[in-house]
Amino acid sequence: MSIATSEIAPESAVEVRSEHDLLGYLDVPAQSYYGVHTARAVENFPISGIQLAIYPLFIGALATVKQAAATANRDIGALDPVKANAIIAAAQEIRQGALHDQFVVDMIQGGAGTSTNMNANEVIANRALELLGHARGEYQHLHPLQDVNLGQSTNDVYPTAINIALDAYVVKLDAALGRLHAAYLRKADEFADVLKMGRTQLQDAVPMTLGQEFGAFASTLAEDRQRLQEARALLHEVNLGGTAIGTELNAHPEYRRHVVAELRRLTGIQTLVSATDLVEATSDVGHFVQLSGVLKRVAVKLSKTCNDLRLLSSGPRAGFGEINLPARQAGSSIMPGKVNPVIPEVVNQVAFEVIGNDVTVTLAAEGGQLQLNAFEPIIAHSLFAGLDHLAAAATVLADKCIDGITANRELLRDRVANSIGLVTALSPVIGYENATDVAQDALVSGRGVAEIVEQRGLLSAERIAAILDAMAAAPGPRA
Amino acid sequence: MSIATSEIAPESAVEVRSEHDLLGYLDVPAQSYYGVHTARAVENFPISGIQLAIYPLFIGALATVKQAAATANRDIGALDPVKANAIIAAAQEIRQGALHDQFVVDMIQGGAGTSTNMNANEVIANRALELLGHARGEYQHLHPLQDVNLGQSTNDVYPTAINIALDAYVVKLDAALGRLHAAYLRKADEFADVLKMGRTQLQDAVPMTLGQEFGAFASTLAEDRQRLQEARALLHEVNLGGTAIGTELNAHPEYRRHVVAELRRLTGIQTLVSATDLVEATSDVGHFVQLSGVLKRVAVKLSKTCNDLRLLSSGPRAGFGEINLPARQAGSSIMPGKVNPVIPEVVNQVAFEVIGNDVTVTLAAEGGQLQLNAFEPIIAHSLFAGLDHLAAAATVLADKCIDGITANRELLRDRVANSIGLVTALSPVIGYENATDVAQDALVSGRGVAEIVEQRGLLSAERIAAILDAMAAAPGPRA
Amino acid sequence: MSIATSEIAPESAVEVRSEHDLLGYLDVPAQSYYGVHTARAVENFPISGIQLAIYPLFIGALATVKQAAATANRDIGALDPVKANAIIAAAQEIRQGALHDQFVVDMIQGGAGTSTNMNANEVIANRALELLGHARGEYQHLHPLQDVNLGQSTNDVYPTAINIALDAYVVKLDAALGRLHAAYLRKADEFADVLKMGRTQLQDAVPMTLGQEFGAFASTLAEDRQRLQEARALLHEVNLGGTAIGTELNAHPEYRRHVVAELRRLTGIQTLVSATDLVEATSDVGHFVQLSGVLKRVAVKLSKTCNDLRLLSSGPRAGFGEINLPARQAGSSIMPGKVNPVIPEVVNQVAFEVIGNDVTVTLAAEGGQLQLNAFEPIIAHSLFAGLDHLAAAATVLADKCIDGITANRELLRDRVANSIGLVTALSPVIGYENATDVAQDALVSGRGVAEIVEQRGLLSAERIAAILDAMAAAPGPRA
Amino acid sequence: MSIATSEIAPESAVEVRSEHDLLGYLDVPAQSYYGVHTARAVENFPISGIQLAIYPLFIGALATVKQAAATANRDIGALDPVKANAIIAAAQEIRQGALHDQFVVDMIQGGAGTSTNMNANEVIANRALELLGHARGEYQHLHPLQDVNLGQSTNDVYPTAINIALDAYVVKLDAALGRLHAAYLRKADEFADVLKMGRTQLQDAVPMTLGQEFGAFASTLAEDRQRLQEARALLHEVNLGGTAIGTELNAHPEYRRHVVAELRRLTGIQTLVSATDLVEATSDVGHFVQLSGVLKRVAVKLSKTCNDLRLLSSGPRAGFGEINLPARQAGSSIMPGKVNPVIPEVVNQVAFEVIGNDVTVTLAAEGGQLQLNAFEPIIAHSLFAGLDHLAAAATVLADKCIDGITANRELLRDRVANSIGLVTALSPVIGYENATDVAQDALVSGRGVAEIVEQRGLLSAERIAAILDAMAAAPGPRA
Repeated sequence: MSIATSEIAPESAVEVRSEHDLLGYLDVPAQSYYGVHTARAVENFPISGIQLAIYPLFIGALATVKQAAATANRDIGALDPVKANAIIAAAQEIRQGALHDQFVVDMIQGGAGTSTNMNANEVIANRALELLGHARGEYQHLHPLQDVNLGQSTNDVYPTAINIALDAYVVKLDAALGRLHAAYLRKADEFADVLKMGRTQLQDAVPMTLGQEFGAFASTLAEDRQRLQEARALLHEVNLGGTAIGTELNAHPEYRRHVVAELRRLTGIQTLVSATDLVEATSDVGHFVQLSGVLKRVAVKLSKTCNDLRLLSSGPRAGFGEINLPARQAGSSIMPGKVNPVIPEVVNQVAFEVIGNDVTVTLAAEGGQLQLNAFEPIIAHSLFAGLDHLAAAATVLADKCIDGITANRELLRDRVANSIGLVTALSPVIGYENATDVAQDALVSGRGVAEIVEQRGLLSAERIAAILDAMAAAPGPRA
Repeated sequence: MSIATSEIAPESAVEVRSEHDLLGYLDVPAQSYYGVHTARAVENFPISGIQLAIYPLFIGALATVKQAAATANRDIGALDPVKANAIIAAAQEIRQGALHDQFVVDMIQGGAGTSTNMNANEVIANRALELLGHARGEYQHLHPLQDVNLGQSTNDVYPTAINIALDAYVVKLDAALGRLHAAYLRKADEFADVLKMGRTQLQDAVPMTLGQEFGAFASTLAEDRQRLQEARALLHEVNLGGTAIGTELNAHPEYRRHVVAELRRLTGIQTLVSATDLVEATSDVGHFVQLSGVLKRVAVKLSKTCNDLRLLSSGPRAGFGEINLPARQAGSSIMPGKVNPVIPEVVNQVAFEVIGNDVTVTLAAEGGQLQLNAFEPIIAHSLFAGLDHLAAAATVLADKCIDGITANRELLRDRVANSIGLVTALSPVIGYENATDVAQDALVSGRGVAEIVEQRGLLSAERIAAILDAMAAAPGPRA
Repeated sequence: MSIATSEIAPESAVEVRSEHDLLGYLDVPAQSYYGVHTARAVENFPISGIQLAIYPLFIGALATVKQAAATANRDIGALDPVKANAIIAAAQEIRQGALHDQFVVDMIQGGAGTSTNMNANEVIANRALELLGHARGEYQHLHPLQDVNLGQSTNDVYPTAINIALDAYVVKLDAALGRLHAAYLRKADEFADVLKMGRTQLQDAVPMTLGQEFGAFASTLAEDRQRLQEARALLHEVNLGGTAIGTELNAHPEYRRHVVAELRRLTGIQTLVSATDLVEATSDVGHFVQLSGVLKRVAVKLSKTCNDLRLLSSGPRAGFGEINLPARQAGSSIMPGKVNPVIPEVVNQVAFEVIGNDVTVTLAAEGGQLQLNAFEPIIAHSLFAGLDHLAAAATVLADKCIDGITANRELLRDRVANSIGLVTALSPVIGYENATDVAQDALVSGRGVAEIVEQRGLLSAERIAAILDAMAAAPGPRA
Repeated sequence: MSIATSEIAPESAVEVRSEHDLLGYLDVPAQSYYGVHTARAVENFPISGIQLAIYPLFIGALATVKQAAATANRDIGALDPVKANAIIAAAQEIRQGALHDQFVVDMIQGGAGTSTNMNANEVIANRALELLGHARGEYQHLHPLQDVNLGQSTNDVYPTAINIALDAYVVKLDAALGRLHAAYLRKADEFADVLKMGRTQLQDAVPMTLGQEFGAFASTLAEDRQRLQEARALLHEVNLGGTAIGTELNAHPEYRRHVVAELRRLTGIQTLVSATDLVEATSDVGHFVQLSGVLKRVAVKLSKTCNDLRLLSSGPRAGFGEINLPARQAGSSIMPGKVNPVIPEVVNQVAFEVIGNDVTVTLAAEGGQLQLNAFEPIIAHSLFAGLDHLAAAATVLADKCIDGITANRELLRDRVANSIGLVTALSPVIGYENATDVAQDALVSGRGVAEIVEQRGLLSAERIAAILDAMAAAPGPRA
């Protein structure tokens, strides 16, 4: 393979230091904690402008893996304790939020994550050097590859860090979904006695309560949270210690056990274990596909719910008009007084993004070849974005929309009384033949069923009201 | 809504009987077990030409639900035992394979499955009438709606039957995947001692065994089977008994308990239960989305594996040439002797179909509104097809490809000896500096690493062979 | 590559003849026109049960290509005229509908279409043999490969036949869309004077006519038809004559010119030309991706229109209730009198199928490698199905839904009079300040805008009516 | 609809000014050019952290539309020339790159683009006020809605600005693809005489030149560029002037003609026209779906090409090893000397992103309802990102990969001489029977075809070499 050398032109006034790799020498900013490998990657991947630092939980996860490795290497005697402790200290600083601006590689990158691993190795090495009293770039004292990356390969570090970061993002999403679930339940309680017409295929069907409708939103979200936890569990099997292709080639026999134990301790994930088939675990991205599929499921459900909210609040005069969403901003630059369902609309769009991302993840997963999937960077990017945006969307939906919803109770009850679907509910009381006659009359005349039933002397107004009240008092699914 | 009437023009010589519905009278073939509702649907949905009968497990599931309902209705005193027993007998016949040709509605249909339910009601009613000594169409003795559909709604019957059918198709797929898993494992054993170069990013990496490679195929499939079982479990929660929108409106208070118990008995699915939130369960299709997502995962993995098989068997002269797939048919109409990887290729294509179907299911799920998802027919069709085709593909892959694979053992070992990646493996023995020198020499000269190491007197030929043998003897992940 | 032989076990009573290929001998039914290559394929690909014959236009296209090749080979002196004429006669019979049941290979097949080409070669050869007075299988007189396939490769025959078939399916779809377009236009005329509230984001916006709404359905479909014609044009560049990989290896120097000219004549496609880069044309499936993308566009638009139709007809009492779709079948097995929008629903589902198919096509296209795309069979299957189902759906939508739609004119006009959005329209007449006051009053009181405007003496009832009439008389986009 | 008020808590030391909307008063930073509507949107949509400003061409397009509107309003006498000129001056500054940091709303937003339009209105108004010597927020002198937005609606401004911005991004992508096309062509020339084995289904087929292979990459890209221009043409039909739902309600009769003419002048797009059906144009997003479909096509082709490049450069010892990609960075943190195809890999991933985005666009398009598509923001975001990333990827691929590719000429020629596929090419010279015998011998013995042909005395070594030379001299498709 031929060798191409190139130089990032440093801006005139910037102090630089020179570093070298197998392609030759390259100047990097003297103040930068990253080094030559990172600089090459910045040059090679000017794609999206979205740097690693946009996902702080991922930066933290990278540092955590590096810290665990340094600790394990120290404890098994593979790494000088002075070096190890400096690495550990540097990693801890990053985990606490420091130096994230030094993670400058584009999220969309070639190289199967090598540049991300290198970025982490270099930043940690230079910060550790600093802590030991050396200048940045003096790698003879502590080396990004020989020390920070000791016993590791991008092929095990990178997916392990993704797993750790995903776990943290899932926890965050779950909390947001929990918040939304609670908001739905509050409305289910508040609207437990609001009778309304249920609809199938957008046609009036039979009565139900608005509380049942919001209760169903809650139930469906509760199920999603369970699926999310199942998908999360798959993240807890890591290939750390497998090195290049999962054969543990050249790895210290004690290393894997130590590093996984330390990672378990640092993350607090009690179920974190070493994969049983490291070769498979190194090439496989099935757990990412699974998580992506579950995110898609969450997105589909959220979108369906928001579609319903927009339908139910359509109007104010020429729509369903059953509920009112809280106004959050002026709705039109031309129509005064118009207020739109902007919060459900933004949630819909996040859902569409997540569903599209699932296809991206699918293609990237299918494209993996032999002992590695080279497309993990776009998988990670898609999943981080999806989890993060869904969490934001769920929070906004709970706080800025659901909590402020009110019901048009009278209109809802009137519609039940007028609806032909009421016949189905009255049928056991007035008999099937009467019910059919009343329905026919209502269809032809356009009059309300309650009105006809009363007029024909089948039931008194009071009795009809009592029946409606009884339906409205039906216990919800959680009773 | 205006009423449009129409007639299916019976072919001249066909005997007909006249039936009517709310649109008026319609002639149906006198010999048909289906009736007017089915005939309307055939007229309304001339879309794909793929009739319900293409999925026998679905027809069986419909009959099973109807049988359970008749039994429950009989036991709670809601249905005359004579009628109930005739319905049960008719349903049992269908479950044993009879009358499937009477399920003639297109799989792609509007109406949220109503026409499928009607088709089942009519076929069962007419067969039951026959068993009772009546003519087809004499519904005054036993009615498709008032008797066969008693206590039911399409909204609970249809999704419940889909769940039951999906369960059976999952069992079938799982068996096929198990067969494939066993085939992989046999090859993992057979090739346990075949040393080869592992690859990352299509570049030579470090040595591994061909047994480990096939072992990884097995491991990844084993994980998929677990995911499939998890998704299957979600199918066992049914909304049967919820009637129209899950409120159990007008249902006999004892009916739901009885019908679910009987369905559990008939299907033998011990974990079959009634959904806790019937309103949610009636509108929700989350379990279909989940299953579809898992099928997509299976598809992605199978496709990746087949991509690998095609790569590894590429050649015979100008490719990887590591393994040989069994020839299954002549490969070219113009190039004599060419044999192609036709079995992996067909599996790839089934995978692409399943991945596309997942998007179809996603759109259909997202499109559900309020108390029902009207698009369950295309969801069911997509899932049945995916499960069925994947099962066929996995079986073909196991029987017609994996079982006959052979390895080019010498070529594989020679490549390891020649590969620069061998340096990484020898590094602990010959030292890092020697290793680097040898690698440099190999890169520049194009010569093999083993050859150089021997020539430099670093290791004897015997020692190198012994090291390679030791690598080949590394225990697999299952040891 | 090792050789595996196998036998299709003939059913006991079936007469067989023995044929052989590079794998050995195989019995095929004596009466079958297909031969050993087809039989192998049937054995190898028991995937979907959907045989080639399901797409008669594709069978016709295959025969057309074979006929063109035989004619060209005869005219350039490469093929004995007696043989050529027999091949031509056989191909013509197939083009007229004969022997389609002999095309028995599964649509989902490995081998990049080789089995389809072989199936065509064998059926044509055996029918030609018969025409020449020989028995089936007496290939010494006329050979499936050496004569029927002369100068051809699957790599040029198969994609060319797909192009020809797709062209015919596009023509069919375009006719169906034209029928639907005309139906929309009729309604646009019929409803040209029906004033209604337009909606943005499901909220009442400003007045428009129902004619404009249906006119927009027509306009958007007209644009789709243009896109379809553009995509169709790409099908008219064929790689026939390129043989194996587009290098025209071993082809007669005059062959390509002759065969393309004859194909142009037979198909009547005046724009049919030879690709300028045959190597590229042989590996490229960009025209399929383009067509699939346009089908997806058509699907998206049809689905959006059907969503609107379902929304506008929602009710009858608790929905929008603006229009009435013709009833096509009973809507419920439990709710008497319920009629559902079953036709739009089935169209939605076809749209979802087509959108999913687009992803399948995308994956198959992306998976092509080097000089050929091995996954053309699933691409062809996905496109044929999509075109066919869309054509059926559009026809059903036009004939069974759009044509019977009626409008609830009074309700629509009342809503305009009551809507706050009317203020925007009256603002130029009554002044901005009055308009704002009226809107505020309407919002607070819940009363109608027209009523308030009249009551305040701003406009007379007659003047308001006249303004509404004027809006209803606004010329549509086509005026 | 109930009204919820809220306050963005200003940071302690930030000077604020108070603005109000229909929800009440809100403090905004005194130095900000945006106002209350923008601030509400920032509060409502804390989703992705990706602000409008990430797409400078979109900000420019918004300003261009606003400038055109102000000019038109001035020219038809609807807007005070002093105000108009200030608006024009402010818009021009933004078009030249100023104030982009004031476009702070999240790209993923509800409200169908209203907040984006408001953000533009406010920034332009405040800058215009400043130019007129007033303080920010003194809207009594020049109003964001009444003046900057005069005669406009988000429903026409927003999609028009998207069209203008997309046009500019398409131009940018086209330039990048042109650069890549030229790079392919240079390699096609350079490798015009390099004979190699062509492959179908990853199996050795028949000879071709490496120049033909790169020529095919060029041809396929040239076709994509044509499709891109076709899709671009659809962007030139705008709905500007249609106001709220395309009925031109309350619009000055001369306004539309003027504003479109001015927009044509400002953008230099000579084909820019007013849509013929404004109602349709306002709700329709078909042109976005079309463009997205074409981007997907470009992505599929680029990905396929990069897959080929990775395959052809696989090795260096155990792969295809036909070509060498230029090394761009160290390939491994553990394997010394390993260099990976990082540039093709990043292009693959951009392609996967674009393909996923297409699904996002599809869902958003399908979700549009009635007179507007509320999901245009995610459509715009997906398309801008896709165009931008594809342009970056194509540029990187051309400059950092294609330009530096070298061929392993000897290995390639040796493989042709050894390949069984050579028999097909020699068949016309040595006769079919000899060819078959040689092929058989080569298959069994493993020896090379050239060697056997020579040994058998069928052709001399010189003659064989001459035949290979002749094949290598075959003119490319462009000759």
